[in-house]
Amino acid sequence: MSADRYAALRPVIAAQGLEAAALVPGANFRRLFGWDFHQNERPLCVIVPARGAPVAVVPSLEAASFDALGFEGDRFLWGDAEGCQGAFDRAAASVGPIARIGVEGQRMRVFERDALAQAFAGAEIVNAHAALSAIRLAKTADEIAALRKAIAVSEAALEQTLAAVRVGMTEKQVEGLLMAALFGAGAEALSFSPIVAAGANAAQPHARARADYALRPGDALLLDFGASHGGYCADITRTVFVAQVSDADRALYETVLAANAAGRAAAVPGATAGDVDDAALKALEASPFAGLIRHKTGHGLGLEVHEDPYILRGNTMALTPGMVFTVEPGLYREGAVGVRIEDDLAMTETGAETLTQFSRALRLVG
Amino acid sequence: MSADRYAALRPVIAAQGLEAAALVPGANFRRLFGWDFHQNERPLCVIVPARGAPVAVVPSLEAASFDALGFEGDRFLWGDAEGCQGAFDRAAASVGPIARIGVEGQRMRVFERDALAQAFAGAEIVNAHAALSAIRLAKTADEIAALRKAIAVSEAALEQTLAAVRVGMTEKQVEGLLMAALFGAGAEALSFSPIVAAGANAAQPHARARADYALRPGDALLLDFGASHGGYCADITRTVFVAQVSDADRALYETVLAANAAGRAAAVPGATAGDVDDAALKALEASPFAGLIRHKTGHGLGLEVHEDPYILRGNTMALTPGMVFTVEPGLYREGAVGVRIEDDLAMTETGAETLTQFSRALRLVG
Repeated sequence: MSADRYAALRPVIAAQGLEAAALVPGANFRRLFGWDFHQNERPLCVIVPARGAPVAVVPSLEAASFDALGFEGDRFLWGDAEGCQGAFDRAAASVGPIARIGVEGQRMRVFERDALAQAFAGAEIVNAHAALSAIRLAKTADEIAALRKAIAVSEAALEQTLAAVRVGMTEKQVEGLLMAALFGAGAEALSFSPIVAAGANAAQPHARARADYALRPGDALLLDFGASHGGYCADITRTVFVAQVSDADRALYETVLAANAAGRAAAVPGATAGDVDDAALKALEASPFAGLIRHKTGHGLGLEVHEDPYILRGNTMALTPGMVFTVEPGLYREGAVGVRIEDDLAMTETGAETLTQFSRALRLVG
Repeated sequence: MSADRYAALRPVIAAQGLEAAALVPGANFRRLFGWDFHQNERPLCVIVPARGAPVAVVPSLEAASFDALGFEGDRFLWGDAEGCQGAFDRAAASVGPIARIGVEGQRMRVFERDALAQAFAGAEIVNAHAALSAIRLAKTADEIAALRKAIAVSEAALEQTLAAVRVGMTEKQVEGLLMAALFGAGAEALSFSPIVAAGANAAQPHARARADYALRPGDALLLDFGASHGGYCADITRTVFVAQVSDADRALYETVLAANAAGRAAAVPGATAGDVDDAALKALEASPFAGLIRHKTGHGLGLEVHEDPYILRGNTMALTPGMVFTVEPGLYREGAVGVRIEDDLAMTETGAETLTQFSRALRLVG
């Protein structure tokens, strides 16, 4: 642990004009404390004032786990019978008056916000999600190593799954193969619920596996998934075809593949997140399939599977060393076919390294 | 789909004095629409006014999936480039002035709340989580059947895992066995990240598996996990001992086992959720191990792994047919040993049926 665990947080608090930051379990919490808690019906909250010692509101049930973190300030416990408000109130009294508290707006829930607002009566509760999460933008070598491990597990599971897919299997069966392969290959957890989508379902970016749809020759089969390691989330998509592929679908695939390459090639020192989206989208827009674009090119990746930098047109955030993000262009013909090819990239001093190694060449399975 | 999808919701809106309910993806959403969305950085929100048609704010990316739900009202799409506020504003303009909106406070996040509050300027945003979630309290026969399936998969995986555990394995290795067994047995997803905790780690109610701790003879080995089926979450805990068990640990185990039996026996027609906690806690409190109690006896179970009814002293909610909940007393001697025995119960007209069948007799493994 560094001398000041909150060293990266303090300039954010200052720059945002906050008098305190209130953090709940999640990726920022894990980055600061090296451990995380489940986000459940029992609020746990660490409040870091601009000046003075931090305080924490902790469910009694979690006291032992929390105390193992070596927290620097007072923690106020609450039990199931009394509820959490008293502990929030005692924590606020200990900190003293605060005018403006920054919170993780995409993570903190309304009942936690309400307890905080009641305890710090009159304080403005500000959504500072992006600013607070920026403490995780530049990944360390250890973090990149954890991502590499998560990706290696994911790619081993993908190869094992694709080798076992057969015409006539249901999406659910393929999903089962993938899950068993992931944990068999050493996945610690899943980055998210995998997407295994065939045929028309592949055209729905967030489809779920069906137990009543069997793979047919000529179907696209899209797998979007990832293992996590030490909390770090791999995220890879490959689209294959079942037994055969039509000329039209092959053309669609090659267009997405070219956009994937264009997006990855645009991730150079000095480029912005928007530049990468631009490069991938332009490749799609210049094709006969421009009408089949449905989403931006990617998102940051780390302890969260969706985080900054968002690879989104107009995002002027410069891509700097240590940033990790996906490049995942896709094309979707509703009711018929979808193709997405997703890689994970890490920025270095000299450019972007594509961490995902799995072949992108058009592949027939089953 | 019933003639009025919102039939169960309307009396809740009226009873809470709300002019609208705003729902985000999650269990209530799934119960109403038979489908759910990932909760991510793209807000999706359905607003059901007390009078008039519902409206929805939907990310363009999810439009096709959303339209498959047969939503009854207008939906306002937003794209990544513009952001969500415009769609919230258009939805609010379409609904008209609203003074009081109920939200799922344990589910809705601050940035969704802020967008809602800005769109419905001046409206009071009320945490109505428990009231809104009450639409899911009484499980249907189909829901109980899904839970039975999830439990059957979980128990098959547990037996396979325990049969394979050996002295010297790490907690992480046991976790890997359990995960592979779960998906091999047909798990659709996990109810939550499993807890696999041995020795001193078993004394931490929410411990995580360690890669650097190998099972030693005499260790308790606690497994708390569940598969889900159709979104319905099994949740089972069994504690076994590695190779041998001390007399002291056996006495601890038998005390928890008696508390588990007492809690389950107290779930009779007319009893409250508090009565069940009382019965289990009294069994623990009357033992020599009263100082090792750390938590309440249980929680409701369904599309969420923690929901009403909470089995908590002082909870006067009557246990009525269709309610499903856990009975999971535990005792934890910090730094040494922990025992928890958790079952899932369903209330019927005549009493409680224990859905989990896995033996509770003290078991040695490895």
